[in-house]
Amino acid sequence: MQEIRIDLPIEELPTKWYNALPDLPAILPEPKDPADGTPTIENNRRIRPVALNEQDNSAKRWETIPGEVLEAYLRIGRPTPLQRAVSLERHLGTPAKIFFKREDVLPTGSFKLNSAIAQAYYAKQDGFEALISETGAGQWGTAVCIAAQSYGLGAKIFMARVSYEQKPYRRYFMKLCGGEVHPSPSNLTQSGKSFLLSDPQHPGSIGTGISEAIETALAHQGKYAYVSGSNLPHVLMHQTIIGLETKKQLAMAGLKPDTLISCVGGGSNCGGLMLPFLPEKFKDPDSLQFLAAESDSVPRLTKGVYEYGAGDASGLTPLTKSYTLGQGFVPPRIHVGGLRQHNGSPLVGLLRKEGLLDATALSQEEAFQAGRLFSLCEGILPAPESCHAIKAAIDSALEAKEEGEDRVIVFCLSGNGFFDLAGYEAILFKEGHQC
Amino acid sequence: MQEIRIDLPIEELPTKWYNALPDLPAILPEPKDPADGTPTIENNRRIRPVALNEQDNSAKRWETIPGEVLEAYLRIGRPTPLQRAVSLERHLGTPAKIFFKREDVLPTGSFKLNSAIAQAYYAKQDGFEALISETGAGQWGTAVCIAAQSYGLGAKIFMARVSYEQKPYRRYFMKLCGGEVHPSPSNLTQSGKSFLLSDPQHPGSIGTGISEAIETALAHQGKYAYVSGSNLPHVLMHQTIIGLETKKQLAMAGLKPDTLISCVGGGSNCGGLMLPFLPEKFKDPDSLQFLAAESDSVPRLTKGVYEYGAGDASGLTPLTKSYTLGQGFVPPRIHVGGLRQHNGSPLVGLLRKEGLLDATALSQEEAFQAGRLFSLCEGILPAPESCHAIKAAIDSALEAKEEGEDRVIVFCLSGNGFFDLAGYEAILFKEGHQC
Ligand SMILES: Cc1ncc(COP(=O)(O)O)c(C=O)c1O
Ligand SMILES: Cc1ncc(COP(=O)(O)O)c(C=O)c1O
Repeated sequence: MQEIRIDLPIEELPTKWYNALPDLPAILPEPKDPADGTPTIENNRRIRPVALNEQDNSAKRWETIPGEVLEAYLRIGRPTPLQRAVSLERHLGTPAKIFFKREDVLPTGSFKLNSAIAQAYYAKQDGFEALISETGAGQWGTAVCIAAQSYGLGAKIFMARVSYEQKPYRRYFMKLCGGEVHPSPSNLTQSGKSFLLSDPQHPGSIGTGISEAIETALAHQGKYAYVSGSNLPHVLMHQTIIGLETKKQLAMAGLKPDTLISCVGGGSNCGGLMLPFLPEKFKDPDSLQFLAAESDSVPRLTKGVYEYGAGDASGLTPLTKSYTLGQGFVPPRIHVGGLRQHNGSPLVGLLRKEGLLDATALSQEEAFQAGRLFSLCEGILPAPESCHAIKAAIDSALEAKEEGEDRVIVFCLSGNGFFDLAGYEAILFKEGHQC
Repeated sequence: MQEIRIDLPIEELPTKWYNALPDLPAILPEPKDPADGTPTIENNRRIRPVALNEQDNSAKRWETIPGEVLEAYLRIGRPTPLQRAVSLERHLGTPAKIFFKREDVLPTGSFKLNSAIAQAYYAKQDGFEALISETGAGQWGTAVCIAAQSYGLGAKIFMARVSYEQKPYRRYFMKLCGGEVHPSPSNLTQSGKSFLLSDPQHPGSIGTGISEAIETALAHQGKYAYVSGSNLPHVLMHQTIIGLETKKQLAMAGLKPDTLISCVGGGSNCGGLMLPFLPEKFKDPDSLQFLAAESDSVPRLTKGVYEYGAGDASGLTPLTKSYTLGQGFVPPRIHVGGLRQHNGSPLVGLLRKEGLLDATALSQEEAFQAGRLFSLCEGILPAPESCHAIKAAIDSALEAKEEGEDRVIVFCLSGNGFFDLAGYEAILFKEGHQC
């Protein structure tokens, strides 16, 4: 039975997150204020819970997970199963074993909840009344609303206007969970108003949402805790629960991974899966591959440059160093909202820079095709973001077949695709990509 | 930790289904052909896998679950967790313990997959090429498509036209999983054509879908295995996996249930949860309550009469004896597709008739309100059908509070509500039912 699914007993739920900062091969480049002198670093500190600021600069290798967060992890389904894609392997005729970590079973539909819960907990500790954040298509926003609610906090979400209008379901979901959702740009903030002034039909983006959320938090200090869904070291640290569980599960089956794969947007499911395997990677870099699957519409890791850049649309966030396509790059409209950020995680950037992380850029067509094949074989509908990891896993398994190699491939199934069926339909059936 | 979630180890997955037929307090009334002499019983036998016909009349108390089905059960997430609604209990201030069985985590979004997999397995055994069935809002149809695909079978689904048009997501899901979906009534069958002749705008229903599916299966014998999503003894038997797991999980925590609750449409999640507890119920009827939560728009168990009736729209199914509101009763349009059938399970009907099953009829408003409260407290979005069970569980917990009684309440969370957010929105926010 363990051949098909490895369940970690409840008692084995990890009780500490792993902080990779002290183990990195180089010092993580610090955030910087922009040249115009805006005190973005100080401002951002003031609107976040203290513990999270500390975690971003911590030298402690292990951070104890608070008891209430552990309890919440149990309630959302952690530890999640590590499952083997037996039918997909058979279909591919590969000698490789393909495992996937089932973050799709979490009740908001993706792994984002792991960090939202932790951030809500610390916000509550610090006496904030509500969480505030931005969301693209809505995965992160939903996680924030549910996490806030479970600690008796409010939630205010700025959602890219185009998604707000085109994807009402996630918005209903957030509202149902007690959240307040505003299309961004909105008339509620100065930055929102100025975006609308420049273009009354402004479609909005994660970037405009960040600007509006930070501005609002700054204007009501102590009321709103501003929380981020990816990028920052503390978010990646919370997500290491994914990799820590995976490690224990592989050990239960007596297996060692050869390749770890994640899709990469802001970088948190990638960091979450891979960072706990850093010790193994350092010991023998060639025996363990870290592979990031990005969208070829936003090919930061494969085509970007490693330099400082801002995260939002109006310069309210500090500049951070990572792979970027340049401040002027506008990601094309794709059906894969979670991989559309123009800047990525400094920590993931550093892994890439140091040669620890391989990357592959995939088209949304091939990703959706891979997702469809996975659905047909395994009966589980993946989120479009996760489809990128699936495609990379399939490619790796076919390589193993070619080389007659009994590889152990593990990828993160970061979310389910229940809210993305219109994307599947558009890409696979309406645009001539029938398969 | 067991106070919050009880996980059954993989090795403890039940390996036999429980067949209640030999243990019933009275003989289950046999199906009958209608007065016009149509050989419906014989016809229906011919289009179903042999094993399923046998299971409908079996005297064997335990049926071994085939190894391939067990393997599939593991892959869809069985055993599913039994979770405690600690926040909801706290919110209600009740001394009762409320547990819920998490069928919502299955990859099609509901418990329906448990029987779809079994039926697909037997169809494959008998050499059928494809499964054929009907679906209302799409939960059952999706389960059929995924189950068929996993055994290399095709799938043809007749979906009520009104849902086909209003709820494209489930249709996309079925298509993506390799299914062929037709709006019913269609022009593909005689019965479809005659429905359309009587009303060119015919909205369709589960009943018209059954007629079209059976007619097609009869016209191509040996090609299509006709499969049913509820009502029949074999479906309820497959679903006993729910109750058998629950029993083991409660035993792990040293608990005995006082009240078991399910929503009831065709009756399969109700039978699935409760039938395995029949021995306990017989031993001491007053110490264990079986409670069915139905929709007050289709109050069969609370207001219907116990008599023979047909299941489809044009008399192709045998007459079965159960609680019914009469052949002419047209269920009003509600947002709760799964509880709209006009006839129910003979087995559930018999339990009710014999005084073993209590029933309560709930409005969709109070059900959605209860579902919202559950979401806010537990962070899990329930299907509207499941909301009825939640409302009944809340009422039971409040009763326990009034009586100062430390009751153990267990309900079946039969599915998630990801595809039902428009229903929530319509009922809770647009129609003045703000809460
Ligand atoms: C399902 C899913 N997977 C992956 C991602 C990418 O995020 P990250 O790069 O932070 O892991 C997202 C982002 O929204 C997502 O929703
Ligand atoms: C989520 C869900 N729960 C419950 C039901 C009711 O079915 P049954 O009465 O067979 O348990 C359905 C039927 O479609 C459903 O989709």
